[in-house]
Amino acid sequence: MRRKEFKVAELEEIEQFLSEVSFGFLGMNSEDGFPRVVPLNFAYGNGVFYIHGSRAGEKMERMKEDNRVTFSAAKEYALIPSYFTDEHMACPATSFFKSITVRGHAEHVVDLEEKASAFSIFMSKLQPEGGYDTIDASDSRYASRLKGVALIKIVPEEWTAKFKFGQNVKDQERQQIIDGLQQRGLDDDLTTIEMMRKYCPHH
Amino acid sequence: MRRKEFKVAELEEIEQFLSEVSFGFLGMNSEDGFPRVVPLNFAYGNGVFYIHGSRAGEKMERMKEDNRVTFSAAKEYALIPSYFTDEHMACPATSFFKSITVRGHAEHVVDLEEKASAFSIFMSKLQPEGGYDTIDASDSRYASRLKGVALIKIVPEEWTAKFKFGQNVKDQERQQIIDGLQQRGLDDDLTTIEMMRKYCPHH
Repeated sequence: MRRKEFKVAELEEIEQFLSEVSFGFLGMNSEDGFPRVVPLNFAYGNGVFYIHGSRAGEKMERMKEDNRVTFSAAKEYALIPSYFTDEHMACPATSFFKSITVRGHAEHVVDLEEKASAFSIFMSKLQPEGGYDTIDASDSRYASRLKGVALIKIVPEEWTAKFKFGQNVKDQERQQIIDGLQQRGLDDDLTTIEMMRKYCPHH
Repeated sequence: MRRKEFKVAELEEIEQFLSEVSFGFLGMNSEDGFPRVVPLNFAYGNGVFYIHGSRAGEKMERMKEDNRVTFSAAKEYALIPSYFTDEHMACPATSFFKSITVRGHAEHVVDLEEKASAFSIFMSKLQPEGGYDTIDASDSRYASRLKGVALIKIVPEEWTAKFKFGQNVKDQERQQIIDGLQQRGLDDDLTTIEMMRKYCPHH
């Protein structure tokens, strides 16, 4: 499944996925013409992607000149060994994964309220168990810190989702892969079977 | 630690890391001026990065026009909650990770021997338990498949490694983080402690 337009249920699924993946890769154009790719923690909320970090300042300098960016996050659910479906040839070896890629423009966030909201989204994603005082721009302990930190939002203009779970394999191979995953039983193998059923083109 | 030049021992460590991470993100320049970022399985060997896949053909078309690429792979070892070092403020929350980024030029691989070698590296990385016949360009079953598959190699011209394990934290916080990780005991937490000790600037 590789598509650029989605239904509401799919958008919810995409948001769910984005809440489970802690980091992604930011693509930028660099001065010397090479593409630039930087891994970063991110949070998705308010319809935008937030990124920050000690190097956000340097990144932002570059983005002032060219703020066209691409951001991509992926999770690999399972490596599918060739022997699940073929006892001789290595060719069927593959991997099943989800990836989300957006294109958009990067903007510097300066409003303290929005910064507080963005970092609250970061914290509830990356530290859901709590253990910190609520981030509030009117709290003087936080206000000074919020002023000092660089925060960037990426406003998505185009989304691409790729959920690859063997949609193109024949029924017999699909069953062999499901049996193989069931028997192997790694952490994500049962989830992978669920995804294979969910995204099976016959269902 | 963020550096562009490395000693032999560090290069071995980088190669070790690359063998543990199954996928990375390829950055390219696209026609319309936006950076392009694509997640892909990869294998590192013979001093180059190999990528392939059903979409390699389309990617290669683009690369014929502009073969300057960046490839980045990362692994997050631990999310460090703020409360390891501060019971009130959310600010110390961070993550410890390794990332490797290379810039270079992409080349289409057409030689069948090199293709066989590259896919052998892929297989020993992603399916180390074996279970397939050796990939050999002189084996007619493989030769036809090798001809049909698109394979790209990225020849690295510049390397950047970032291994972030709290090198900049003070001694007291370092100990608090180590204690917190020890107590939490997630899968990678003990490895993270090892990395913190290994990359500690005092050692």
